[in-house]
Amino acid sequence: MTPEGGGTGFYINKDGLLITNAHVIESYNEVRVESFAGGHSISCPVVRKVDDYDVALVKCDTVSLPVRLPWKGWVQRGESVNAIGAPFGKPAILTKGVVSNHLTEEELIRSDVEIHPGNSGGPLFNSKWEAIGITTSNYAIPVMGLEGESVDVTVPGITKAIPILRALKVLNIKVHHRK
Amino acid sequence: MTPEGGGTGFYINKDGLLITNAHVIESYNEVRVESFAGGHSISCPVVRKVDDYDVALVKCDTVSLPVRLPWKGWVQRGESVNAIGAPFGKPAILTKGVVSNHLTEEELIRSDVEIHPGNSGGPLFNSKWEAIGITTSNYAIPVMGLEGESVDVTVPGITKAIPILRALKVLNIKVHHRK
Amino acid sequence: MTPEGGGTGFYINKDGLLITNAHVIESYNEVRVESFAGGHSISCPVVRKVDDYDVALVKCDTVSLPVRLPWKGWVQRGESVNAIGAPFGKPAILTKGVVSNHLTEEELIRSDVEIHPGNSGGPLFNSKWEAIGITTSNYAIPVMGLEGESVDVTVPGITKAIPILRALKVLNIKVHHRK
Repeated sequence: MTPEGGGTGFYINKDGLLITNAHVIESYNEVRVESFAGGHSISCPVVRKVDDYDVALVKCDTVSLPVRLPWKGWVQRGESVNAIGAPFGKPAILTKGVVSNHLTEEELIRSDVEIHPGNSGGPLFNSKWEAIGITTSNYAIPVMGLEGESVDVTVPGITKAIPILRALKVLNIKVHHRK
Repeated sequence: MTPEGGGTGFYINKDGLLITNAHVIESYNEVRVESFAGGHSISCPVVRKVDDYDVALVKCDTVSLPVRLPWKGWVQRGESVNAIGAPFGKPAILTKGVVSNHLTEEELIRSDVEIHPGNSGGPLFNSKWEAIGITTSNYAIPVMGLEGESVDVTVPGITKAIPILRALKVLNIKVHHRK
Repeated sequence: MTPEGGGTGFYINKDGLLITNAHVIESYNEVRVESFAGGHSISCPVVRKVDDYDVALVKCDTVSLPVRLPWKGWVQRGESVNAIGAPFGKPAILTKGVVSNHLTEEELIRSDVEIHPGNSGGPLFNSKWEAIGITTSNYAIPVMGLEGESVDVTVPGITKAIPILRALKVLNIKVHHRK
């Protein structure tokens, strides 16, 4: 998915409804979506966006294979997680980790799976390959680059994700569970 | 546990004896200890501190749930480890990895579990959830921050821990094993 | 293995044939090889080097215990991998991760195992402890050090390896598989 720097998204129904981060969409009304399987990219309108929760919906005119969604939102500390994304415009990349905590205060899932710019908006799967969250950010420290510019340095092992059921609720979406 | 920047510690008996890093204690004679479970914090005196080995004992006037301790100190390369800590003052965070080596020379356990400031003094568990070590430091490189200040950047995958039996010996402590 | 900064290599037959990265060898005709088991180091001539693929062969006059090699080169996304190396001149270090992708374009295996300078040229094992690749580099960003110098900061979770069968082909080597 590429407005500018790019990001990742995933289909939540078979009619081309795609969820991602609001910050990936930026202020575009339409984004180009490219399948991990390759092929040509298609242009899809942004249908909803809630900046406060960093979630957005895009509707592509395509038949899509949706992710499996969990029945309950709760995750357990220590649970295995898998992130899939397209950092640096590279082909789909898998990284693995565990849930470090369910941050009730910030209402985010924290894990030690490594993600990178471009992973944003992509799915965080549990061990049953249900998409339990939208990987959103990892913790980074700004330091000085070689030309005095600000460079964000990733702190390893700190990744946050928006719980999927919360994202759907915020976006006011009901989805049928894939059996 | 909070003198300043904070750190983590863990109970080694049910009478409130808590072990941590000496560098977490700094030069305080008393520290405030807050339970992961939340609730009010209590003030506990530092009872012993060996700076050369970076270990310290604190005695809280409370009934405590101690960690399980291992019967033997030796760890195996490749063994799974779990670190628990409170980096950045956040709630208890779990990260996972494997033992990379038993550094006989430095007498430390090295693993690829990710830890962060605030994890210091916290337990490193094996897969049986025995506290085999006190997570102490990860490797960091100083680089220049945006205002010319020194910023420590974590090198991923390099974490050191003090073997627990060694720490107990240095602190001259005998503990009963929890069955 | 040490010309300068050092690196890692591994034996691919029992007659002392050792494979590593070309960039570990630099432009030396002979390198000093030290066993992980310790003991004295030996001097071994470089017998072949293909800079374009960053692979090299060294022949030590010793009886060696070779790694197991895989029968097929293909790896699966999500497969467990283990890297062994000697970063920072420390004793053999094990780190674990999963295959993130098989980068067909660059013909490299990408994984989220953490490696460090000194791991270069070392083996990347699968879960059957077959050496499927030569760990070669992790992604790093240059930032400014405290004295204005360039410091490479490792981006966590991005490690590349040269598939072993490709390396052997490029070096024009046939090896017998260890049963």
